[in-house]
Amino acid sequence: MGDPIPILGGTGALGAGLATRWAQAGAAVVLGSRSAERGEEAATKIRATVPGAEVTGMSNEDAAAAGEVVFLTVPFRNQSENLNNLRGALKPGQILVDCTVPLAAAISGKATRSIGVWQGSAAQQAQEMVPDGVTVISALHTVSAPNLAGDDPLDEDIPVCGDRKADKKRVAALIEEIDGLRAVNAGALEMARIVETLTPMLISINIRYKTHAGIKVTGLPDQDHWS
Amino acid sequence: MGDPIPILGGTGALGAGLATRWAQAGAAVVLGSRSAERGEEAATKIRATVPGAEVTGMSNEDAAAAGEVVFLTVPFRNQSENLNNLRGALKPGQILVDCTVPLAAAISGKATRSIGVWQGSAAQQAQEMVPDGVTVISALHTVSAPNLAGDDPLDEDIPVCGDRKADKKRVAALIEEIDGLRAVNAGALEMARIVETLTPMLISINIRYKTHAGIKVTGLPDQDHWS
Repeated sequence: MGDPIPILGGTGALGAGLATRWAQAGAAVVLGSRSAERGEEAATKIRATVPGAEVTGMSNEDAAAAGEVVFLTVPFRNQSENLNNLRGALKPGQILVDCTVPLAAAISGKATRSIGVWQGSAAQQAQEMVPDGVTVISALHTVSAPNLAGDDPLDEDIPVCGDRKADKKRVAALIEEIDGLRAVNAGALEMARIVETLTPMLISINIRYKTHAGIKVTGLPDQDHWS
Repeated sequence: MGDPIPILGGTGALGAGLATRWAQAGAAVVLGSRSAERGEEAATKIRATVPGAEVTGMSNEDAAAAGEVVFLTVPFRNQSENLNNLRGALKPGQILVDCTVPLAAAISGKATRSIGVWQGSAAQQAQEMVPDGVTVISALHTVSAPNLAGDDPLDEDIPVCGDRKADKKRVAALIEEIDGLRAVNAGALEMARIVETLTPMLISINIRYKTHAGIKVTGLPDQDHWS
């Protein structure tokens, strides 16, 4: 067993869905929430559904210190506030995986539209706000929370953006612990400007097809993408 | 046989690739170019490679009048100029399928970056510029020209954006004449802002994997999407 996987905002739909799949894969997970109590409540639910799940709950700040690669799954509306609160908790050498999506829904607009972020993307805003030495990777925008929470097998790709391949590879290894997810190197962190907009595109498709769509990238070589 | 399919900018890589695949499917194609001679040269090449191909070449303006659903496959750098030249050629009731992508390469930037278009997307710029009564549909940004030109079977999805489902359905029917392509309703024309950026994302992936990537949407129902 490696480090537990901290999921900040782990009581939300995406965070809880990821926690459930990782628990099913045998990975230890720490769910962070604004209050340690709510985090522990969410962890209790997952332990009740996944036999043997190593999932505990605590405050976001405590969770952030529990593992090297930290996933941030809060709504975009709360991203800045959370990053401010994490200034004392994140340490140099850690990786913060930003999963937030700047949907217009954050400002009472449509979920099929995105809003412009000054830094270019939510992930780039996160990179500006984390302490020096913390690296932001952008991932997990396209897998739907209902699919993660459900029992059906997954078969989707996860575009991963970041400035160093070695960091993306570490995140990819965690993502690929979840059965049916393949991490795809989508380029530098600035590509999050595009990847973050896949979510409103898929929401638009979901409305039309009454489904929970995801994406796959065709034409990739069969061998390990990250070697 | 229905109308021939006009492809404006049909001497470029995307246009010629589409023409080849449609010719293989038995569809009649008209290749438009700035000069009728260059259009005919490109058509001659396709007739040489696809036995029985019904492909002819002419000027863009003449080609635009040859069919109801017209594909515009010019580089974004030339899109406005082409649309200006087509003002007298396109007629109310026609559909213009805009396939252009506002890559930063159009202004000597990187092909992994897009540029902001005042109207929101290249397709919305096209909608502003076409004569009244002409409807713009946005499609065919993610299938690579080398894949279209090659002999390997295709297996990709094509997001289609437009404001009326009936128009998208007509375009989808033409796209799906090409074996291995499935048209996916990605929403209103404004969604082209997102779909047009899939190209630089795929170019970024292509650089890393030395491939010609495309996309598929997971989770769609099996039945006919357009009924």
